[in-house]
Amino acid sequence: MTKNRKPALSPTRNESYSEWYQKVIRAADLAENSPVRGCMVIKPWGYRLWENTQQLLDQKFKRAGHQNAYFPLFIPKSFIEKEAEHIEGFAKECAVVTHSRLEADPDGKLHPGGELEEPLIVRPTSETLIGAMFAKWVHSYRDLPLKINQWANVVRWEMRPRLFLRTTEFLWQEGHTAHSTQEEAQQEALQMLDLYADFAKNEMAMPVIKGGKTESERFPGALHTYTIEALMQDGKALQAGTSHFLGQNFAKASGIQFSDPHGVQRYAWTTSWGVSTRLIGGLIMTHSDDDGLVLPPRLAPSHIAILPILHEDTQATVRAHCHRLRQTLSDIRYHEQPLRVEIDERDLRGGEKRWQWIKKGIPLWIEMGRRDLTKGTISFGRRDKGPHQPYSLPYDTFIATVTDTLDAIQHQLLDRALAFRDAHTVSIDSKAAFYDHFTSCHKTRSAPHGGFVIGYWSGDPAIETQIKNDLNVTVRCLPLDTASTEEGRCLITGKPSRSRALFARAY
Amino acid sequence: MTKNRKPALSPTRNESYSEWYQKVIRAADLAENSPVRGCMVIKPWGYRLWENTQQLLDQKFKRAGHQNAYFPLFIPKSFIEKEAEHIEGFAKECAVVTHSRLEADPDGKLHPGGELEEPLIVRPTSETLIGAMFAKWVHSYRDLPLKINQWANVVRWEMRPRLFLRTTEFLWQEGHTAHSTQEEAQQEALQMLDLYADFAKNEMAMPVIKGGKTESERFPGALHTYTIEALMQDGKALQAGTSHFLGQNFAKASGIQFSDPHGVQRYAWTTSWGVSTRLIGGLIMTHSDDDGLVLPPRLAPSHIAILPILHEDTQATVRAHCHRLRQTLSDIRYHEQPLRVEIDERDLRGGEKRWQWIKKGIPLWIEMGRRDLTKGTISFGRRDKGPHQPYSLPYDTFIATVTDTLDAIQHQLLDRALAFRDAHTVSIDSKAAFYDHFTSCHKTRSAPHGGFVIGYWSGDPAIETQIKNDLNVTVRCLPLDTASTEEGRCLITGKPSRSRALFARAY
Repeated sequence: MTKNRKPALSPTRNESYSEWYQKVIRAADLAENSPVRGCMVIKPWGYRLWENTQQLLDQKFKRAGHQNAYFPLFIPKSFIEKEAEHIEGFAKECAVVTHSRLEADPDGKLHPGGELEEPLIVRPTSETLIGAMFAKWVHSYRDLPLKINQWANVVRWEMRPRLFLRTTEFLWQEGHTAHSTQEEAQQEALQMLDLYADFAKNEMAMPVIKGGKTESERFPGALHTYTIEALMQDGKALQAGTSHFLGQNFAKASGIQFSDPHGVQRYAWTTSWGVSTRLIGGLIMTHSDDDGLVLPPRLAPSHIAILPILHEDTQATVRAHCHRLRQTLSDIRYHEQPLRVEIDERDLRGGEKRWQWIKKGIPLWIEMGRRDLTKGTISFGRRDKGPHQPYSLPYDTFIATVTDTLDAIQHQLLDRALAFRDAHTVSIDSKAAFYDHFTSCHKTRSAPHGGFVIGYWSGDPAIETQIKNDLNVTVRCLPLDTASTEEGRCLITGKPSRSRALFARAY
Repeated sequence: MTKNRKPALSPTRNESYSEWYQKVIRAADLAENSPVRGCMVIKPWGYRLWENTQQLLDQKFKRAGHQNAYFPLFIPKSFIEKEAEHIEGFAKECAVVTHSRLEADPDGKLHPGGELEEPLIVRPTSETLIGAMFAKWVHSYRDLPLKINQWANVVRWEMRPRLFLRTTEFLWQEGHTAHSTQEEAQQEALQMLDLYADFAKNEMAMPVIKGGKTESERFPGALHTYTIEALMQDGKALQAGTSHFLGQNFAKASGIQFSDPHGVQRYAWTTSWGVSTRLIGGLIMTHSDDDGLVLPPRLAPSHIAILPILHEDTQATVRAHCHRLRQTLSDIRYHEQPLRVEIDERDLRGGEKRWQWIKKGIPLWIEMGRRDLTKGTISFGRRDKGPHQPYSLPYDTFIATVTDTLDAIQHQLLDRALAFRDAHTVSIDSKAAFYDHFTSCHKTRSAPHGGFVIGYWSGDPAIETQIKNDLNVTVRCLPLDTASTEEGRCLITGKPSRSRALFARAY
């Protein structure tokens, strides 16, 4: 085996990042395009990633005092019209239901029939409808805070769909809360942002930068939109989750009022926040390599694949040993859940089988044959260390350290992602350097889109338009933790500025 | 307290069963109608029932070798047209998306814009679309069986919606499998029916009768539809789940072909099966009484509510004791999960608080005050025993027996439901007796719709039409376990018949 072996995927990241992304998904059998334009089919291995994501987030939401509920898929047109900015934001890209049946013509062809009095919109997000329900449920300050979450599908028409990253239909959660004071609502929006950032870091091994969006990038109708921004391996940013402080805009549009302790009627303060199947796209692009998917153990559908090496004469013994091994491993708990272990007994060449699992991103694989059985050892591979780094441990040692090994992989992936981000984040303080950076970055093989740039910015929206047009670069956010009292100068205009912005090209 | 106390709900079951049903839902805060006609909002207590249902079923599906995936919400019109019977069945009641945006007119009013080339149907069920994907995935007999399940929302336009029982949008799971032989597919359809029946009996404490549907009640496109039928307290049947053997109809319509071991191309044999939020309606109507919701412990969102009795001077001690008690209880496992325990510390009168929990169907409630604390006892109530049957046990005994108590409640509910069904199932062998039964049953207070009738039936669809028109009675199924070699005579026509049918009015 040579060091310069051919990678499992073609093209590689350097050859064509976007084609490589499609290949990773196909080779891992995560999802594929459907016959419905812009809508994807999430296949079992990809759906298990989403189920694990849901389960871990759902626990965190519930611990933070939120309750799940379910609201209708359809939103009457008149509801969308209630909040002016909201219309602007969503009317251009929504699925409109206008009829309630199909009718056959004399040739047997079907046509829409039963026209609805009022068209219905397939929810692009549910602030207006949930607001109408909150208005019924909230009467007194005693009914607040009201903290609800919904797991659902939503639809936003996509002209340039990409699996997981942008699809017309996607799966998500949308949290909606109402509070009696501005401070409490603001606090809630920030707390949920923290929850998302912790999940991204600790479970996804994907470091993110927390910040506030500029006015031009805010959620339609929000006073503040907070975001977590991750850096992908091509140097583009990915907005991975958002949390909105909605002020009283939706409370006024929907009539969410309560009587305060003095009997005075007041409008509630609301928030909303969401993450979606887009997270899976971020997960793929943060960790995967030219051999395919790489998964952090905390989210991996399976932690360990056992691959029996089957020879005619020792088959039965080896199989039995593998099943005992699986049982032993399944009884071990990893972060409060049983280890997820599979045996792959298919009749395939060993190399082919191993490569299938490598491409699926399995964190650990064990190749078990007669020799290991006799010697009482375990031979295994670690997905984070590449396919040709062999490991061998005495059976008992492997069992005793397996959860440590998985944690080591988890940390290794996070460390690697952090190192990548650090290496591709630069501070820039002049327009010339800024333009030079984003016009020459494509020449570097690593992060050809330029990564993150941090610099002072005056807050002028005209500058956002200019750099968007000139360089396809946007202000990703005003990072929360770089707020300083120091004053600098806007890197483009030279005007005095107290705030630093995070710039990047973005998905 | 008197035996003849007023029940908590008005009207009672006897006064108006359908209004009582709405009242149970409102008093337990399970769900409510939304501003979107026919669509409901599932509130947190109701949604937790659905989450528990999902979790338990999902485990069973996975153990039986099924994998979850996710398919698009939209189905192109041309897909629906592929299977002739399928069109008939679903075209009349579907939501049709015809436009991709809303456009403002000069007055600022929004109108549908961006007409689609081909209308999209919001899925009423997904056989056609999933069939198209299966056709891509299946090539060889080695790819079979393919066993997929999807948790999703579906839409079927409802003219007379009722919360949980019939809603335009509902939540469900739909299983779809493909097999290489007819026998294996047939077996799968029956195995999933058994799984549903076991879940209904063991987790929902709702006994069901398994059987095959008559041709007129089959799923559009199926060769056989199997059903589980439950009996509600008003004597009407509820179809609680169905499993379809689809033969090769959908495989031919979608082109699901495989090469068999001899290299011959064959069409696959497919099945589909589903249960929905309708199960919650069945759960409500099987167990609830005139004081509100009654829940089997296996599905209850919470098992135990601790209600502290708070007096000025002993408040702190009682509260602390309640929190320790909750911790102790939460550490106990009940059917592989931690006990679900809540403390209700709201500042409400004790009676009001207790009644709220009774109406929510909490299996056990503990009223904890100074006296029990001093004596080292637990005073509690059991929802299955009525609100005024007091129980008291030494603290340690209560803790040691609490899971037995919950199991006793679970069994009590099942026994009661079985006894009700037995009491309202009759064998009838003449037309006169049949007509007399269903025309006079409304005079009985118990099961005014007549319950189940078992009798021989010739299989003539004209008879089905006749009894439907005359009595609003349908053949619910041909029960699987009453198949006999005996020959009888059709109770309506007197023709010889080998099969017995289950007749009832139905939801």
